[in-house]
This record gives sequence, structure tokens and C-alpha cells, in this order.
Amino acid sequence: MKIGVLGTGMVGRSIATKVADLGHDVMMGSRTADNEAAAEWAAAAGSGASPGTFADAAAHGEIVFNCTAGVGSLEALALAGPKNLAGKTLIDVSNPLDFSQGMPPSLFVSSTDSLAEQIQRAFPEARVVKALNMVNHEVMVEPSKVPGDHDLFICGNDDSAKKEAVALLESFGWPAERIQDLGDISGARGMEAYLLLWLRFWSAYGTGHLNIRVLR
Amino acid sequence: MKIGVLGTGMVGRSIATKVADLGHDVMMGSRTADNEAAAEWAAAAGSGASPGTFADAAAHGEIVFNCTAGVGSLEALALAGPKNLAGKTLIDVSNPLDFSQGMPPSLFVSSTDSLAEQIQRAFPEARVVKALNMVNHEVMVEPSKVPGDHDLFICGNDDSAKKEAVALLESFGWPAERIQDLGDISGARGMEAYLLLWLRFWSAYGTGHLNIRVLR
Repeated sequence: MKIGVLGTGMVGRSIATKVADLGHDVMMGSRTADNEAAAEWAAAAGSGASPGTFADAAAHGEIVFNCTAGVGSLEALALAGPKNLAGKTLIDVSNPLDFSQGMPPSLFVSSTDSLAEQIQRAFPEARVVKALNMVNHEVMVEPSKVPGDHDLFICGNDDSAKKEAVALLESFGWPAERIQDLGDISGARGMEAYLLLWLRFWSAYGTGHLNIRVLR
Repeated sequence: MKIGVLGTGMVGRSIATKVADLGHDVMMGSRTADNEAAAEWAAAAGSGASPGTFADAAAHGEIVFNCTAGVGSLEALALAGPKNLAGKTLIDVSNPLDFSQGMPPSLFVSSTDSLAEQIQRAFPEARVVKALNMVNHEVMVEPSKVPGDHDLFICGNDDSAKKEAVALLESFGWPAERIQDLGDISGARGMEAYLLLWLRFWSAYGTGHLNIRVLR
């Protein structure tokens, strides 16, 4: 499958490497065509991996991952272009973290709205699925980094897009029964606000290799 | 031990009943001395249970629970009186939920502050411990309502107050090793923001008898 990954940070590199390792044809997109991080990643990842602009990567992908920093996601997606996102499953991994006041970061949107909803409203023809934002980038692509049964949450307005996302997430190693659908895209309000708790877990436990399971 | 419980709603009644059942001398406080819910509760709970004003209950308690609705907590605690709270462990169970725009509620404070921090700032001589706000009122006092091992989080600035709170929470049925300290009172930013996720779990799973466990 052709996959576009927007963003060259740790999250983008982890996800792009994983989908390339799984045999997909992956393009990593960034602001400029000559981004060094994207070129280095593509050289290391080998065949089936290429760098490009946000627009190139979005056009390339049948499924597109938004792995840009939350504060720049709307702009990055605008550069990717609404046409290149139209009709596609857009897996939004971003978090609306504001680091401008130092650590711990706060959220620049929360409670009555979410970044995923802002993205869905700004790109109404994209089929946005929020996923993976609640775990560390290494856990995203290798769930066994956290021992035991733990949950991955998704939400989105389009059921077929969620099915596509789930199939890909299963190929990452997430068991089907542990992928939990929280409903429409407004579920991202909860999934993003959780970051404020995740940051406290990270601080209290001294590791980002952690995740939650819901018991009921 | 003498315990004051502020609030006559489901949370206040569950906690007041539990501590009375455990043999403590409990006063349930409300806005007025003749509150019907508090009188009914006291009559049903039997000896060691009495109703009073917020100030009566705060003065009575060696440990005080804030079980008022978040939107009214600061006012209720002002009525309870700073003198009656000074030096005492104040277990804050409230959540800053704003129901004014309907369901699901939003948070009226979040991200860069929390209700628990507002309370600690407003009553600097109280030793505020945030606890129990992340679970349903029935689970608070009977953790086995949720099967399996799941976690209860606390935070606060005063270590001796946290120890007092932990001892009481253990008597509620929470295993010591499942009570997790998230650090100072600013941890409440995460514990309160979690409500936005809890509401989605409640909606997706159709039960409030749920809780999370952190795996790492």
C-alpha cells in the first residue's frame, strides 16, 4: 500500500520506518523537498522509502499519517493540500501540546474542542481517525514494549476509515481486541486531554514505555 | 476518627456511608443545617452519623472530604471556613465539570491549572490531597466493583496528608500497591483532565464501573 507520513520527528520516523518494514511504499513529507531528516530516513529505510514535500507525501499516500507537531499540524496539512487529502484516511497522531511556557506542556485546545476536530473541520473531505497519540512513539509501533494487555483507542466519524486504520494498527502488533473505538471524532477531546495525565505518569514512573488498560 | 464529608450528592453519600460503616464518627455537611438529604442519610446510617452545616462538618472532621460539585466547591469550602480546614487533610474528590452546555460536560479549569490547585491556593493552611475523582462513586468505596487490578491515583503537596489519605483509602478496599502517588498537587491537572476520557469510556462501554490500570 502507498503510505504518506507527514512529519520528520521521532513519531514520523518511527511510523514511517514501521510501515516501510511492513513492505509498504512510504513517502515521508516535510516542509521542503530537501529536508535532511527525511533524506536520511529514506536512505536508511531503503527501497520503498522516499522523501518529499508535505504535498508530495499526501498525494502519494492512500493512507496518510499526520505526525507533525500539534502546534503546526493545521499549517502542515494546508501545505499538504485539501485535494491530496480528499477521500483518504488521515490518521491523526498529533497532540495539541503547547511547550511555549516550558515543561510540563499545556494543551492549546481542549475540553470543548480538540485538534482532531479542528483538522476534520478544516479538511472536511479527509476521513480523520485519531489514533496512537496516547502512547510513546516506540510503543506505537511495538506495543510489546509495554508488557501485558493494554489498550489502543481510536475515534473518527467514518467507519470505513476506522476499519482501514484498525487493519494497519493490527499489522503494527496491536491485537484486534485491544483496539477500542471511542466513537466519533469528538472522542479526541478525551484522547488528547489524556496527555495531561500521561505526562504525570511519565514523571512519576520515569519511563514513557507505559500504557493503560481499561478494566470493567 | 472524626470525619467531615462536605456534600450531600451521590459522592458525598457513598463516602459518608462507607466511613460510617467503617466505624468512624461522621458528619455530613451542607449549605443549611436542615438539609433533608443529609438528615435522611444520617437517620439511615445510624449512630456515629450526623448532619450539619459545611462549617459544622469541617469543624467536626479530623479529615475532611470535599464531595461537593466542582462548580460550587470553592464557595462551599469558603462556607466551611478556612479556620475549620487549617492543618487538616482535605481529600478533594471534586471534578471541575461544567454541565451548562449540556452533555458531555466540559471542564471549567484545565491544562495550566486545576480545581485542586485553586482549592489549595484559596485554603493554604489545608493539606489538600486529590483522590478518588477518577472513578464512579460506587467504585470509590468498593473497588471490587471493577474486576482485576486497577489503580487509584493521588497527589498533593503534603506527604503526611497523603499518608493519612492512603491509610483511609486502604480501609476502603484499595490495595496499597495500587494507590499511585503522582506527586504534588499540580498532578490534579492530569487527574481532572482524565474525566474527559472517562466520559468517553462511560459512553463507549455503557457502564461507570470501570477504571484504568497503568502497565509499564
